[in-house]
Amino acid sequence: MADFRFELISGGASGPRLGRVHTAHGAFDTPAFLPVGTSGAVKTVTPEEVRACGAQAILANTYHLHLRPGEGLVRELGGLHRFMHWDGPILTDSGGFQVFSLSELRKVTPEGVHFRSHLDGSKRFLTPESAVAIQEALGSDIMMVLDECLQYPATRGQAEASLELTRAWAARCKAAWRGSNALFGIVQGGAWPELRLRSLEGLLQIDFPGYALGGFSVGEPPALMYDLVGETAPHLPADRPRYLMGVGTPIDLIEAVDRGIDFFDCVMPTRNARNGTLFTAAATVNIRNAAHAADPGPLEAGCPCAACRSYSRAYLRHLALSRETLGLRLNTIHNLSYYQRLMAGVREAVAAGRWEAFRDGFRAARAAQAK
Amino acid sequence: MADFRFELISGGASGPRLGRVHTAHGAFDTPAFLPVGTSGAVKTVTPEEVRACGAQAILANTYHLHLRPGEGLVRELGGLHRFMHWDGPILTDSGGFQVFSLSELRKVTPEGVHFRSHLDGSKRFLTPESAVAIQEALGSDIMMVLDECLQYPATRGQAEASLELTRAWAARCKAAWRGSNALFGIVQGGAWPELRLRSLEGLLQIDFPGYALGGFSVGEPPALMYDLVGETAPHLPADRPRYLMGVGTPIDLIEAVDRGIDFFDCVMPTRNARNGTLFTAAATVNIRNAAHAADPGPLEAGCPCAACRSYSRAYLRHLALSRETLGLRLNTIHNLSYYQRLMAGVREAVAAGRWEAFRDGFRAARAAQAK
Repeated sequence: MADFRFELISGGASGPRLGRVHTAHGAFDTPAFLPVGTSGAVKTVTPEEVRACGAQAILANTYHLHLRPGEGLVRELGGLHRFMHWDGPILTDSGGFQVFSLSELRKVTPEGVHFRSHLDGSKRFLTPESAVAIQEALGSDIMMVLDECLQYPATRGQAEASLELTRAWAARCKAAWRGSNALFGIVQGGAWPELRLRSLEGLLQIDFPGYALGGFSVGEPPALMYDLVGETAPHLPADRPRYLMGVGTPIDLIEAVDRGIDFFDCVMPTRNARNGTLFTAAATVNIRNAAHAADPGPLEAGCPCAACRSYSRAYLRHLALSRETLGLRLNTIHNLSYYQRLMAGVREAVAAGRWEAFRDGFRAARAAQAK
Repeated sequence: MADFRFELISGGASGPRLGRVHTAHGAFDTPAFLPVGTSGAVKTVTPEEVRACGAQAILANTYHLHLRPGEGLVRELGGLHRFMHWDGPILTDSGGFQVFSLSELRKVTPEGVHFRSHLDGSKRFLTPESAVAIQEALGSDIMMVLDECLQYPATRGQAEASLELTRAWAARCKAAWRGSNALFGIVQGGAWPELRLRSLEGLLQIDFPGYALGGFSVGEPPALMYDLVGETAPHLPADRPRYLMGVGTPIDLIEAVDRGIDFFDCVMPTRNARNGTLFTAAATVNIRNAAHAADPGPLEAGCPCAACRSYSRAYLRHLALSRETLGLRLNTIHNLSYYQRLMAGVREAVAAGRWEAFRDGFRAARAAQAK
């Protein structure tokens, strides 16, 4: 905690907030979107490009880095920041989400979760204590407790049982944490607002520097997520940062900021870029579509990103059809820029006191696109 | 020819030369190595990165661009330079080399070559006239005549027949050329020096702004190529640039410069990069090798490239094993930088009158590596 500090600039327990998260590797402004660098690289792009897109912080996946190259090697080489040449804040997940998606390959016990590596089938055992130790070895600035990620849909009984396990693990993570960075608790509880609040109560008793909302982006309807976020956020302590994990679409970010969330991560901008699905203010574009074959214009007029500055839609389509990895990269740069420009717009609107107009304009534009 | 001019700075018909090739899109210093941008992109890297590696000119493949996106579209979009955002000189091959490597899919007639697209099986017909028209539509600065590429080994009879066809096609290309850029003749003749000279004689009668040596990098022993280059080069006109097509390894470049060649292209630095084979002065490195797993040092100490400046061998290996396309790109940047530094070193050595020492040092280093 020596280096971690959350500065709340405006806002309270609910509604849009402005803030700044300080870490040993610099700060990031909230509301923020963190690009995902799964294996110690934001796919296809350099850290310089990630920064040029406007990102101030990134996420890395503990599960992937634990399996390859291993946290011991990363520590030996000076930590993840040096290893991947990113000197800004790094948030790591606990590895739990990936382990729980190995549905056939894992077994949960009160002690931890047994699983087999998807790379070589080797047996592994992840505990709350080892999840913290791995993240510390990586040199994470913001670590996550190990939690059990529920499937959607789950029964209320499953959600309650999971919640108890997750609370016990959160306490063990807190006890294992050495305190030189930040450790966030994760609110679970499935689709039941009262279970979400019970989960939060348990975490508040343990006391964390920040709180994440977990268990979303697992197939639930967006409206349900918005409702659950809206019912949970007012009970989160106003002076701690709130992180909505694995979310989401542009409208998801707007709706969650509106309900009091400070930051996000998601593979959507990078993964969609690689399959040619590109975000613009006017529409979501499939760059492989024949409509773009002879289009000399940029992907998005006025976009300052390196892809839009120098290349036509026709060329981006050509790269996609020709399977040139340069295309994956230019697309990624555009989508990351889109997300960062969106969040910069959010922060400006909140700061200028015109949040409602910004939000309503975004909702209206999205509704018009859906027609 | 309005915009094309070769400036011979030093040297004569044989031995190392210094020069400068001027085109409508700027000039490049010779001896030079041109990276290959097959489909209108040097694989994995941007034009800015190609230039940062030191390259002043690139090659693009007519065959690939003709099939996709088609030269008509490229012309409509302002030409290949604008399409791919490279404003320096572009050399295009004739498409013949690729067509002739479609051994099962093509049929040669005196009129031209029938082939089927490897993309969709559609029937195509490439003639000397259409090869020139396609390259002109692309906006090429330096075009190549359509030639028949012999297999290696070939019989003397095959080589003679091929030579006659190639000479007739060269004359038709010259007649079809509108003269606003440059058109190079291609010396064929297989492994027989006297056929090479007969081929050259025919081309000299037609008269081209520059001459290429073709039919190499098809499996022949390097020593045979060096001998053939050494026997042919003295008969090339000293005031015209000489281009050795599709060559080669670093030592190939040194040996060919020594015999009077001005420039080269080859997929070797880019293709090898993508499979993890990386060039350094001390050795050729397979970055996937376990020896690099924990190596905190750069790929090559002192290398100023973006990969060596910021990343360790351990990280490059991790990217390769994790199949991160960022790794392909960093490797490509290094290999292109290596080739460009090599050619810069060649030019400096020739300019400073210490070519023999440079060449002998390179040969000795290579011989030591081979042990």
